[in-house]
Amino acid sequence: MRRFPEPIQNLSAALTKLPGVGPKTALRYVFSLLQLPKEELMQTADLIRELGEKVRLCPKCFNYTQNEFCDICNDPKRDPAILCIVETSRDIPTIEVTGAYNGRYFVLGGVLNPIEGMTPEVLRVQPLFKKLREENQIQEIVLAFSPDVHGETTMMYLTKQLLGFSKRLTRLARGLQAGASLEFADEITLGEAFRGRKES
Amino acid sequence: MRRFPEPIQNLSAALTKLPGVGPKTALRYVFSLLQLPKEELMQTADLIRELGEKVRLCPKCFNYTQNEFCDICNDPKRDPAILCIVETSRDIPTIEVTGAYNGRYFVLGGVLNPIEGMTPEVLRVQPLFKKLREENQIQEIVLAFSPDVHGETTMMYLTKQLLGFSKRLTRLARGLQAGASLEFADEITLGEAFRGRKES
Repeated sequence: MRRFPEPIQNLSAALTKLPGVGPKTALRYVFSLLQLPKEELMQTADLIRELGEKVRLCPKCFNYTQNEFCDICNDPKRDPAILCIVETSRDIPTIEVTGAYNGRYFVLGGVLNPIEGMTPEVLRVQPLFKKLREENQIQEIVLAFSPDVHGETTMMYLTKQLLGFSKRLTRLARGLQAGASLEFADEITLGEAFRGRKES
Repeated sequence: MRRFPEPIQNLSAALTKLPGVGPKTALRYVFSLLQLPKEELMQTADLIRELGEKVRLCPKCFNYTQNEFCDICNDPKRDPAILCIVETSRDIPTIEVTGAYNGRYFVLGGVLNPIEGMTPEVLRVQPLFKKLREENQIQEIVLAFSPDVHGETTMMYLTKQLLGFSKRLTRLARGLQAGASLEFADEITLGEAFRGRKES
């Protein structure tokens, strides 16, 4: 079997690490990259390099940032008494565009899924406890996970573990479709869900 | 609206140039890249850079290659009397795995689609004529395009233009589903189609 030149095959193999990308799609991407002007191709390589060099985790909330702390932790206008726990950094801008929330965040780094190896030890459960013990001004914790099986499990687990850490422990209102992914919710539904949050 | 750190946004914007990748998918890819060990991320950047530096077009057939000429043009075992014209380099390995063809190739660089700016001037029609005039040992030309609207148009156009350039002018047998893309055909169907090719 005759194959593609090595650089095509190597990049193609690397791209199959992207979510939902199989060998055929990866190859399609490589060929589309080959169509770009050389300058743009090099720029894409540099952008990936920059991603690795410049983006780090905020030590307060584990959101991605270019600075020492993230913009939200640095912002004195954000209410330090409310903490919203999310699965990934990606969820933060999704919530921010609704304008329905003005507290701070904590990125758990995933949801509970023991079969896939996502246990409380792998998630940032200990760093969360540490943060809650150190910052004892927190009055409300909002659990903002996708209302699917693993999200619900995670919220049940956190509800048990976090009792006593804050006056209120809430979750987003059931305005979200059951089984849906938080990432694809529209702004209005997600805004409604934020405003209608209830005791967990 | 609060946004992601600049390196995330910049790479995300760059990735929307990939086929079928919108802003949400691009962002998903960036976040998945951020999950990789830093070393692997840098390696991915290097692989893209290498793609631009090492891959070039074979001047004989316009297939991608790392060397001066591509493996197929360099191979003395390939029959120089048959020339298979394909839309893109990607089609070549798809045909090669069938084992049904032992001639050489010519990559046209697309299919006719005047609305999208794909006119005979943009495609490698002139280089094809030049090649056919220079290498007058060609006895058969195989038109191996996807049997969809634009592929059929291109084959009709080439049939008219190439009359007199070779003894036989063939196209792949109608074993392929009408409207399907050559890229996703299975090996057996494509092999059958190669063996059953008929006068164009």
